[in-house]
Amino acid sequence: MNSAVSEPALIGIDWGTSSFRAFLIGAEGEVIVRVWSPDGIMQVAGQGFEAVFDRLVGPWLAQAKLPILASGMITSRNGWVETPYAEMPLGASDLAQALVPHEVASGTFIHFVTGASTEHAGGPDVMRGEETQIIGASALGLNEGTFVMPGTHSKWVQVADGKIKDFSTYMTGEVFAVLKEHTILGTLMEDGEFSEEAFEMGVTAGLDGGSNLLHNLFHVRTLPLMGKIAKVATADYMSGLLIGAEVAATTRDIEDAGTITIVGRHDLSDRYESALRTAGFKSRRAPDDIVAKGHFLIARAAGLLG
Amino acid sequence: MNSAVSEPALIGIDWGTSSFRAFLIGAEGEVIVRVWSPDGIMQVAGQGFEAVFDRLVGPWLAQAKLPILASGMITSRNGWVETPYAEMPLGASDLAQALVPHEVASGTFIHFVTGASTEHAGGPDVMRGEETQIIGASALGLNEGTFVMPGTHSKWVQVADGKIKDFSTYMTGEVFAVLKEHTILGTLMEDGEFSEEAFEMGVTAGLDGGSNLLHNLFHVRTLPLMGKIAKVATADYMSGLLIGAEVAATTRDIEDAGTITIVGRHDLSDRYESALRTAGFKSRRAPDDIVAKGHFLIARAAGLLG
Repeated sequence: MNSAVSEPALIGIDWGTSSFRAFLIGAEGEVIVRVWSPDGIMQVAGQGFEAVFDRLVGPWLAQAKLPILASGMITSRNGWVETPYAEMPLGASDLAQALVPHEVASGTFIHFVTGASTEHAGGPDVMRGEETQIIGASALGLNEGTFVMPGTHSKWVQVADGKIKDFSTYMTGEVFAVLKEHTILGTLMEDGEFSEEAFEMGVTAGLDGGSNLLHNLFHVRTLPLMGKIAKVATADYMSGLLIGAEVAATTRDIEDAGTITIVGRHDLSDRYESALRTAGFKSRRAPDDIVAKGHFLIARAAGLLG
Repeated sequence: MNSAVSEPALIGIDWGTSSFRAFLIGAEGEVIVRVWSPDGIMQVAGQGFEAVFDRLVGPWLAQAKLPILASGMITSRNGWVETPYAEMPLGASDLAQALVPHEVASGTFIHFVTGASTEHAGGPDVMRGEETQIIGASALGLNEGTFVMPGTHSKWVQVADGKIKDFSTYMTGEVFAVLKEHTILGTLMEDGEFSEEAFEMGVTAGLDGGSNLLHNLFHVRTLPLMGKIAKVATADYMSGLLIGAEVAATTRDIEDAGTITIVGRHDLSDRYESALRTAGFKSRRAPDDIVAKGHFLIARAAGLLG
C-alpha cells in the first residue's frame, strides 16, 4: 500500500443531470479523493457552473496545477459546454482526439469529453457520460461483451477490444417513475419492504410478454384489484414487469451474451442481477469509480498526463 | 319519419370517469333525447351521485315512470353502487340476469349493469361500460369479429353471435398522456397541427418494433434532437409509435381479423383507422349511441320494457 504517498496527476469530473462527482486521480489511475454533491446540472442555475466548479474543485487546483477532464450531461445543450457526439466504434484514443478544451477564469483548461451516438433502423441513439465509464471498465479487464447500465434511461452497450461498438437506450426507469406517480396504476400502490416474490413474478411476465407491454401494464391494476398481489408489492411487480420486458427485448438478438457486466447504482443493480438470472444470463458487477478510470485512460491517450 | 311521436320506454345512463351521458329511449330502441354533462364520477363529490341523477334525469321521470339502466364506471368501487364482474361469454341475457337494482329516494329503481372480467395467463382483465356498448353494436348487425375501443385504456374485444368472448385492455392513452406531460420526451414537443406524416412514421416504427417499446420511445427524444422530425410533429410521432405497438401486439395472434370495428371518440378513431390501414387491416366505424342500444337490449332481455 502506497496510497498515502500518491501524487495527484489528474482531476476527473462526472457531472450528470442530478449529481456532481469529482475525483482526484493518481499517476496510476488510482482514486486519491472523491467528492460528491447534489449539484447536478438540473440544480445549477443557468450560468452557475463555474461557481460550482470553483467551490468543489478549486481547493485541489490551489495545491497543484492539474489537467482536468469532465464528462456527462454537463456537455449537453443544457450543460456548460456542448460537445458533439462521436460515432462508433469508440475507444480511449478516439475520445482523446475529440476532447473539447474550455478555459475558465482562473486560466485553467477543462477538457470536455464528447458524447457518443449511434444509428439504428428506428432512429438515432445517444449517450453522455456512460462512454467514459465503459472506457474505464476496460482498464479493469472488462473490455469485452455486453454491459448494462441501469438508471432513468438504462443503456445496453456492446464492447469489443475495449471499444464501444454499439448501444441502445431504454426508458425503463423514467417510465416506471411516471407510471407510479401519475397514472391509475399508482393509486393502488402502498409503500412496503421490497418484495422479491412480486418482483420475480413481474420479471417472468415481462420476459414472456415483452411485446405486449401496453396490455401487461394493466395487470398492475387488476392483480391488486382482484386481491392477487398485495398493494405493498404492486410497485415491485411493475418494476419487474418493466425490467423483464427490457431484458427480453435487449437479449433477443444476442446469440451468446456471455457474462453481462452490470454498471451502476446498487439497489437497481440488484434488480437487474436478479432479472438476468431469471432470464438465464450470467452477470457480474463493475466496481465503483470506473468513470475515474475512464478519465485517466482518455487523458493519458490525449497526452495530458505529462 | 315518426320520431316526433315516439313514446319513451327506457332511460339509459352511461356514467363514466370523466363524463355523464343519459338517453331517453323509445320502444324500438331509438334515441329520443340525449343529455351530456361533464359530471363524471371523478368530478362528483362522494355522495353527490343522486343529486346529479335528479338534476339531469329527474325532468324525464317527472313526465313518465320509466325503467332505468346505468352502466360504466359508476358501478365501480369509486362509483355509486359497486356491481360484480360477470364472466365470459357475455350476452344481453347474461347481463340482464346480473342487473343490480338500487332504489333512490323518489322510489325509482336504477338497474346497474355489471362489469365484465376475463382471465389471461398474465392476469385478470376488466371492463365497465364497454360491455354495454358491444351488446348495443349487435343490435346494428355488428355482432361478430374484433372490436377496438380507443381511449385512455383502449379495449380490444372478441365478439361472436352477439356475445363477448374475450377482451384485453391496453394502457396506450394514459401512457401517451403521462409520457407527454411528465417525462423528458415532452420537453422537446411543441404544439402544432396534426402531422399525418409523423404519425404514420411512428405507426410504422411501432408495428415493426412492438417488442422493443421501452427502447423505441427514446427515439421520441433523439429524432427531434438530431433534427430528423419537427418538434411540432413529435407528439404525433409518439402517438403513432404507441398505437402501432398496440396494433402489432393485439393482432399478432389473430389469424383473420376480418373487418375490425372501431368504437369511440372520433379524433382517436381517425388515428386507429389510419394505423389499422397501415397494418393491413380493414376497419369500419360503429355509429354513435350504441351504448343506448345496449341499454335497450339488456332491459328488454330483463323484461323491464313491460
